[in-house]
Amino acid sequence: MTNQNEQSGHQNSYPENTMEKLISLCKRRGFIYQGSEIYGGLAGTWDYGPLGFMLKSNLKHLWWKRFVLDREDMYPVDAAILMNQNVWKASGHVDGFSDPLVEDVKTNKRYRADHLIEDFAEKNPTKNIQTKGLTLSIMEELIKSNDIKSPEGNALGPVRQFNMMFQTNVGAMQDEGSISYLRPETAQGMFVNFKNVVDSFHPKLPFGLAQIGKAFRNEIAPRDFIFRTREFEQMEIEYFIKPPQGEHDRAWEQIFDEFRDEVKEYTADIGLSQDKVHELEIAPEDRAHYSKRTIDFEFDYSFGRKELYGLAYRTDFDLSAHANTSKANLEYFDEFSDETDPAKKKYIAHCIEPSFGVDRTVLAVLMDAYREDELGGEPRAFLKFSPKVAPVLVSVSPLLKNKPQLVEKAREVYMMLRKAFPGRVTFDDNGNIGKRYRRQDEIGTPFCVVIDFDTIEGLDEHGVEKFLPDGQAVLNTVTIRHRDTGDQERLGANDIVDYIRKYL
Amino acid sequence: MTNQNEQSGHQNSYPENTMEKLISLCKRRGFIYQGSEIYGGLAGTWDYGPLGFMLKSNLKHLWWKRFVLDREDMYPVDAAILMNQNVWKASGHVDGFSDPLVEDVKTNKRYRADHLIEDFAEKNPTKNIQTKGLTLSIMEELIKSNDIKSPEGNALGPVRQFNMMFQTNVGAMQDEGSISYLRPETAQGMFVNFKNVVDSFHPKLPFGLAQIGKAFRNEIAPRDFIFRTREFEQMEIEYFIKPPQGEHDRAWEQIFDEFRDEVKEYTADIGLSQDKVHELEIAPEDRAHYSKRTIDFEFDYSFGRKELYGLAYRTDFDLSAHANTSKANLEYFDEFSDETDPAKKKYIAHCIEPSFGVDRTVLAVLMDAYREDELGGEPRAFLKFSPKVAPVLVSVSPLLKNKPQLVEKAREVYMMLRKAFPGRVTFDDNGNIGKRYRRQDEIGTPFCVVIDFDTIEGLDEHGVEKFLPDGQAVLNTVTIRHRDTGDQERLGANDIVDYIRKYL
Repeated sequence: MTNQNEQSGHQNSYPENTMEKLISLCKRRGFIYQGSEIYGGLAGTWDYGPLGFMLKSNLKHLWWKRFVLDREDMYPVDAAILMNQNVWKASGHVDGFSDPLVEDVKTNKRYRADHLIEDFAEKNPTKNIQTKGLTLSIMEELIKSNDIKSPEGNALGPVRQFNMMFQTNVGAMQDEGSISYLRPETAQGMFVNFKNVVDSFHPKLPFGLAQIGKAFRNEIAPRDFIFRTREFEQMEIEYFIKPPQGEHDRAWEQIFDEFRDEVKEYTADIGLSQDKVHELEIAPEDRAHYSKRTIDFEFDYSFGRKELYGLAYRTDFDLSAHANTSKANLEYFDEFSDETDPAKKKYIAHCIEPSFGVDRTVLAVLMDAYREDELGGEPRAFLKFSPKVAPVLVSVSPLLKNKPQLVEKAREVYMMLRKAFPGRVTFDDNGNIGKRYRRQDEIGTPFCVVIDFDTIEGLDEHGVEKFLPDGQAVLNTVTIRHRDTGDQERLGANDIVDYIRKYL
Repeated sequence: MTNQNEQSGHQNSYPENTMEKLISLCKRRGFIYQGSEIYGGLAGTWDYGPLGFMLKSNLKHLWWKRFVLDREDMYPVDAAILMNQNVWKASGHVDGFSDPLVEDVKTNKRYRADHLIEDFAEKNPTKNIQTKGLTLSIMEELIKSNDIKSPEGNALGPVRQFNMMFQTNVGAMQDEGSISYLRPETAQGMFVNFKNVVDSFHPKLPFGLAQIGKAFRNEIAPRDFIFRTREFEQMEIEYFIKPPQGEHDRAWEQIFDEFRDEVKEYTADIGLSQDKVHELEIAPEDRAHYSKRTIDFEFDYSFGRKELYGLAYRTDFDLSAHANTSKANLEYFDEFSDETDPAKKKYIAHCIEPSFGVDRTVLAVLMDAYREDELGGEPRAFLKFSPKVAPVLVSVSPLLKNKPQLVEKAREVYMMLRKAFPGRVTFDDNGNIGKRYRRQDEIGTPFCVVIDFDTIEGLDEHGVEKFLPDGQAVLNTVTIRHRDTGDQERLGANDIVDYIRKYL
């Protein structure tokens, strides 16, 4: 479980009001809608529309390919969201997974105490209030001594811990025994299946379990669009390694560093500006007590530098906690080890955990891609997605929609491209060609293919056959337009698939 | 919402104790584990292991390809699991989505009243008790008049409705206003986004929204492995059509029948024995009041003929209910219609809903594939998966694991196949070749490729070059063994990919 440690935002180079414009674009064009919107929404929930679904799907696919399919040491699992309550007792979530809450004594509305203090500190910089790592009693003291009020201007009560897990009851009875929680992270679904996977596949250490799935946290103050939500998706790996053989065995560091590189490469792969991605080495005193090393990968959002991913060496904390609480034997029997002492061939594996937020990735990619510029003398807003992640990779248009020959040929090219790039090709014959380009720019489509009279006739105005500079006949060529520059090229209709593939 | 209508099981041709053997195989080989198993489980939840994950993933992919990617009229969405409580008031789930429960007056344990009556009727066939479509009061009457007891032998209390939605609270307050439910079906996530998608994409009717996602039902008696669970996955489409123009407009029937064919073809595509798949036309008096036609697709499981999929023409019930409750205007403005009267160009779209249970599909495919036979004089159990869905498509082995030349060549072939079939190729060099075959048979691997000395030397025992009957040199050929027959062929190492592709 990574705590959502935040730093105050650095100045950055986003266009003015990027967040507002992005939220509006996402709704208007079908990326992301407010959850349950027609009922006034449900705070902290968002629904992915067709384009957001495809963008998210591309990001997950690139992750899965890199961290699972291209490796030989990864075992995918898909564990249930509802788990036995004892899982969360063992993991520490029942006792410790909470936020500090404070109540407006008049309205009884509840607020995050740390957020109120941060806001106050920001508005009163001369007071020089330290806002990191506060205990409940220090928060209460700060609220009292500074007379911090609720947003409504009322006095505040005592600061209390509020557990962030959503609770429900499973079965016909509503009692202590039937309590269950929506998992606040996917990680535990892998730890509890460690033994199952070992028994089924006898993997040699090191090996990993990998999972993509939903998780839920009852955030008191969901905010920043899809950054801090109550329902979100995670991509996580629990990578199991041999325990260090004594103090000086630093073999884990190499594996840790390999993942560190892979995480960085993933952010480049999905097209994130590398100067906006930062590593934050978590100091020993700020790490979870069991962690020997933790790095947060942060991203410069328009609202500040925030945690995107986490990478932590968690030692044997998780498997030991589950072994102790469940009484199951979670030792790994190392049949591949050279040890002759059978006792030394059994041990609790250690674990390195790379953890990724899917929705935070979607937001980073969307925000980083959002650009405003001028093209052909007109201002435009567009999404500069990498072709690898763009929901629509290519749009196909007939120059005119009322010329059956053009439409027919355009449909033919469209069907060919659909086959090569399933789910990522659109047919667009609405309005004039300039409007179509702007519409595609706005959703980040890297390529627009247009079928015109040259494509089907290949003749100039005198009826004479036309040729490209390289001598190729113009007949059966199309124009392909590049989103970022507006530049157009002419190339053979049958060469488009290979041409686009080069960008993937 | 399809009600899980059940028929008592027909005699069928499964091997004895198929279910027990299947559950055991699934755990042992890494298809499906009990949820939270090391904590004694959480009834009605199951975790997919690596092979189950891959099988499920293949089944979902084939569905997605057929119903979304290969069509031009489908819009994917991914809506939140947690929704505003008013969604479920509008849909009828808060009031109506319940099971009849009865309490053992001594132990206070609760049971499904209908199940107790069914069990009693089965054990007392001479009483000829009708068990279908019972009201609460008739159930109570039957329990009283027949003196039906709890499984513990105690008297039973009154029959009460028990809502099957899992309830939780969202936000800091625990009151009426903060109640939310885990969605009991994915369908409503599409209805509430109808307007959003129309506004973003201006689709022409008919068009559909499609979604794959988790849903949750607090089943009192989860049973039959992954058939009746508390957490499950659905694949659903809401397909919107024009309302009928008067009584005699039967245009919807054609669309309904097209989906009916597609559903049938999907069951064939994933390899289900077609004689085990049945259509059940739901009689008008058994349909939901708003439905003009409903077909259940049933499958002959080892425990009886049970509902697999549903196909229903739901008229305008869902969109009308949401429009009425939310006060949002969910009318479709038909800009493509020839009507001149603007009032007639606005209407509430009707809807046809094909609904698929993912886990039920996984179970049907697993169970249908489970076979026992004899091969080479020895009994074996194997999974006769279609190559399209088999989690492992091909395993690659060196004949001997201690011959570096064989291993090196086997690794080379393995890497080539991995590239062609990501996630579906395994390297197996454990034990003798016969054992490897049996191990692959048991998990349903259709093809085993073996690299032997002929592959790397192509010489007979006298050092003379060997040839296949067709004149091809044996050098750089491999054996490929077929799971169902045990037959082996020899073919060029570079031809394997194309050879296997023909089966997909």
